[in-house]
Amino acid sequence: MAVKSDIEIARAATKRPIQDIGAKLGIHSDDLVPYGHDKAKVSQRLIDAVQDRPDGKLILVTAINPTPAGEGKTTTTVGLGDGLNAIGKKAVVCIREASLGPCFGMKGGAAGGGYAQVIPMEDMNLHFTGDFHAITSAHNLLAAMIDNHVYWGNTLDIDIRRVVWRRVMDMNDRALRQITASLGGVANGFPREAGFDITVASEVMAILCLARNLADLQKRLGDIIVAYRRDKTPVYCRDLKADGAMTVLLKDALQPNLVQTLENNPAFVHGGPFANIAHGCNSVTATTTALKLADYVVTEAGFGADLGAEKFMNIKCRKAGIAPACVVVVATVRAMKMNGGVAKADLGFENVAAVQAGCANLGRHIENVKSFGVPVIVAINHFVSDTEAEVDAVKAYVASQGSEALLCKHWAQGSAGIIDLATRVAEIADLDAANFAPIYPDAMPLFDKMQTIAQKIYRADGVIADDKIRDQLAQWENQGYGHLPVCMAKTQYSFTTDPERRGAPTGFTIPVREVRLSAGAGFIVAICGEIMTMPGLPRVPSAETIMLNEDGQIEGLF
Amino acid sequence: MAVKSDIEIARAATKRPIQDIGAKLGIHSDDLVPYGHDKAKVSQRLIDAVQDRPDGKLILVTAINPTPAGEGKTTTTVGLGDGLNAIGKKAVVCIREASLGPCFGMKGGAAGGGYAQVIPMEDMNLHFTGDFHAITSAHNLLAAMIDNHVYWGNTLDIDIRRVVWRRVMDMNDRALRQITASLGGVANGFPREAGFDITVASEVMAILCLARNLADLQKRLGDIIVAYRRDKTPVYCRDLKADGAMTVLLKDALQPNLVQTLENNPAFVHGGPFANIAHGCNSVTATTTALKLADYVVTEAGFGADLGAEKFMNIKCRKAGIAPACVVVVATVRAMKMNGGVAKADLGFENVAAVQAGCANLGRHIENVKSFGVPVIVAINHFVSDTEAEVDAVKAYVASQGSEALLCKHWAQGSAGIIDLATRVAEIADLDAANFAPIYPDAMPLFDKMQTIAQKIYRADGVIADDKIRDQLAQWENQGYGHLPVCMAKTQYSFTTDPERRGAPTGFTIPVREVRLSAGAGFIVAICGEIMTMPGLPRVPSAETIMLNEDGQIEGLF
Repeated sequence: MAVKSDIEIARAATKRPIQDIGAKLGIHSDDLVPYGHDKAKVSQRLIDAVQDRPDGKLILVTAINPTPAGEGKTTTTVGLGDGLNAIGKKAVVCIREASLGPCFGMKGGAAGGGYAQVIPMEDMNLHFTGDFHAITSAHNLLAAMIDNHVYWGNTLDIDIRRVVWRRVMDMNDRALRQITASLGGVANGFPREAGFDITVASEVMAILCLARNLADLQKRLGDIIVAYRRDKTPVYCRDLKADGAMTVLLKDALQPNLVQTLENNPAFVHGGPFANIAHGCNSVTATTTALKLADYVVTEAGFGADLGAEKFMNIKCRKAGIAPACVVVVATVRAMKMNGGVAKADLGFENVAAVQAGCANLGRHIENVKSFGVPVIVAINHFVSDTEAEVDAVKAYVASQGSEALLCKHWAQGSAGIIDLATRVAEIADLDAANFAPIYPDAMPLFDKMQTIAQKIYRADGVIADDKIRDQLAQWENQGYGHLPVCMAKTQYSFTTDPERRGAPTGFTIPVREVRLSAGAGFIVAICGEIMTMPGLPRVPSAETIMLNEDGQIEGLF
Repeated sequence: MAVKSDIEIARAATKRPIQDIGAKLGIHSDDLVPYGHDKAKVSQRLIDAVQDRPDGKLILVTAINPTPAGEGKTTTTVGLGDGLNAIGKKAVVCIREASLGPCFGMKGGAAGGGYAQVIPMEDMNLHFTGDFHAITSAHNLLAAMIDNHVYWGNTLDIDIRRVVWRRVMDMNDRALRQITASLGGVANGFPREAGFDITVASEVMAILCLARNLADLQKRLGDIIVAYRRDKTPVYCRDLKADGAMTVLLKDALQPNLVQTLENNPAFVHGGPFANIAHGCNSVTATTTALKLADYVVTEAGFGADLGAEKFMNIKCRKAGIAPACVVVVATVRAMKMNGGVAKADLGFENVAAVQAGCANLGRHIENVKSFGVPVIVAINHFVSDTEAEVDAVKAYVASQGSEALLCKHWAQGSAGIIDLATRVAEIADLDAANFAPIYPDAMPLFDKMQTIAQKIYRADGVIADDKIRDQLAQWENQGYGHLPVCMAKTQYSFTTDPERRGAPTGFTIPVREVRLSAGAGFIVAICGEIMTMPGLPRVPSAETIMLNEDGQIEGLF
């Protein structure tokens, strides 16, 4: 039998009306704001009404450093949610929304794969419920109000060379990375350098994903630093009186989106901040609402555990007052082999020694996650080419580290393939054995926070930064931003800043090239290496083959 | 009793579920794609299913030249729809969507006023069902693919000085009118001049509003001219293979949006092209679908009848194969006074002579509309300050022109105030007395089409254009575009190109400064005077006072 593609499986699925999915969580149809028949936002009224309920158990799915072999983190998140439902637990999945722009470049966004997917995947890869468009609008309204303020007299004394608020577009468009704006004469303003980032890189995205409610959202929007004066004092979004209108634009976008898995279980898909210059997790409103509605909430964090889980713990959990009861680290035999030095072309051949060599990467992530005081279990996401000896090698290695690894076949079998993991995860979570704490306190100086992450998580010798950066950090500490967590922007492919260094390297340093203050989101970004905030399209963009077929179905998007 | 504001009236309205509204038109709830509980798109399946039904009667609402006094064209369109329903007719309203960007500048968009409104007005002024965001995405995808093509080798030989496809944003942002893009070195492409228009000025908007179906949409998108080569031959959207992906992005946006009036009657709100560089009407899909679902369809066209009705007849009706059975010209006593020379501050004083003097403007519009072979009736949209003598003066003038004028009080009374007009309009439409024809044939040379509009509609001595423009028109005729209608981009405030010349001026010419080919939309644009395609924000943007109040309601948007 031919293996079906993700889209074939998704199209063959029997979708249930979104009201039925909401009913599984006890949500009345009046509290679902429908977007079509298969998507809905949860009403603010419901969110308010459930605030006093006890929280369910939070389960984080993270992964080893990503490789071209693919780890299947979202697939495992979705599969685990279905698996928990299959063993009779009331569980919900919380994942991120896909960005529209990149779908026209290389490939569609992540909604899982095989028999562990969230649907409707076409909508999730296109406009979905309009959240990203709302973020784009709110972001660019603020940008327009900055230049408009300067145009009409600049009473706030903005230095147009020091406007730090760029514009955004949900599109891969390298031509907009760096522009000169306001050309063409007096009527068009004062010419200045400007540029666009992709929408997921907007601080508004990070804010939306960290805000607890509308009031918190508006407060954070007001806190955004948009520019500096010649004396380097900051000008805030609030000074331009843009925070109210931005909140209005984001009012609906703040409400979590409910969809379903292939097995008709509920899934919240909400928010999608960059995982480098931002924290890379789905929204706090979705996660905290889900915790009130279900007994088990399975969520994921971007990239590998060195970036994603670290930020999930140190930024999202710290700020939202939540904590994971269990963490699942996803690994694959193929990725272990690549971490052990095998080239992608040779992945089809059994190579137990390479698997064993690559396990050092997994081992470090297990240790790291444990350092936050939370129980860890490893999910081996099965590929058809994996041999039993290779799988056993991973299991043996994990056992030697004092943890356990379970083989999961959710990609091929759906929930039936992940019953063992679901059962163990529920057991672990029910033990309430977690004793979660971030790995650095709020009060630690900013540079020391970076040093802590670099040494404890990456196992670097330390952070290198020149005096200019240290002076900047000191200035922010003096201005009252010293309590913020730091958000490391580093390659996801390695513990180091060199994407080629796989495995578990030692003997390296982390150079911080630049630091940025996201005062609204509430973190300091440390840029380590080249970070691209506006992608380009490839030589042959996938847009060239995306079209409607004769049945009105979308081809080429996935 | 204090007069209630529009938003107070709208909030006090009892909304019915959108499924109930659809049921009035015989639409099953399965064929409504809901966006919240009070908005829905009509499914493609339903649109396909009703194609063989007979058409209802089409009624166009147009107006005299707009003045700061306000004419209430949308208010009258909505009121007339309610009035027809009140006298037992199956009627539906078709109006345009509001643009989001300008709402943060001066004021909210038009959804009617008083007791003749379409709701939910907050949503209609914000993201609504996402149509404009989809247009923005599709437009900017094409823009990104142009620069990407040049970046990767430019096999189509695009002259980067001759890229005519700008970018768009649904925002008033003068800083983006003229920019230099692709700065910053090799990785960012080839520096070139570029710029942004507001989304409603996008040719994609005009195309969406003229397309009959998805296949026609894709064909028109493919026809867009995006750039020229050094030898001045055109490069099409189709050459970049962008038309398929753009169609996918616009798939849902092409489906008409159903909402309701304050009196719970159905209203389609769909599309909103500029009324100067485009044709300024709601979508063909909404109008033609409405004609299959209702016995009477009341729609409007942008600006005064010299621009809006002319384009409705010569572009939309010609291309869509539809024809109005009756045209309503909206006039107000206040606007007659202003056309008669009274300043806005003095409008509160009775001035019958000024009313009589101003009626010349109305008279010319009546004559013009009749020249298309369609019956005309005048609606006097009542203001509380109007005196009986003033109203009688308008009625007497219109009678002297061989038409009739009826006083309408829908703003204050809803359908009860417009029963007389509704009754007469239905009678006229039922007579089938219209003998509609555009005022110029497809085969007429392009310059002569402009001349015809200028002389027959504006009553100008003629069109002035230099040789360069005439050569351009000749070139397009040689390339096979000679059959297209022309779209005049002229001030809406006067028959002339001088916005200060009210009334019914004669002895002037129409200078055509520039011509543009909208090959996808299917018309030639003649630019007469300064036309702004990217507005700026005012000194104190309304965004500064737009916010959520303590009840979570939006303040300041209207």
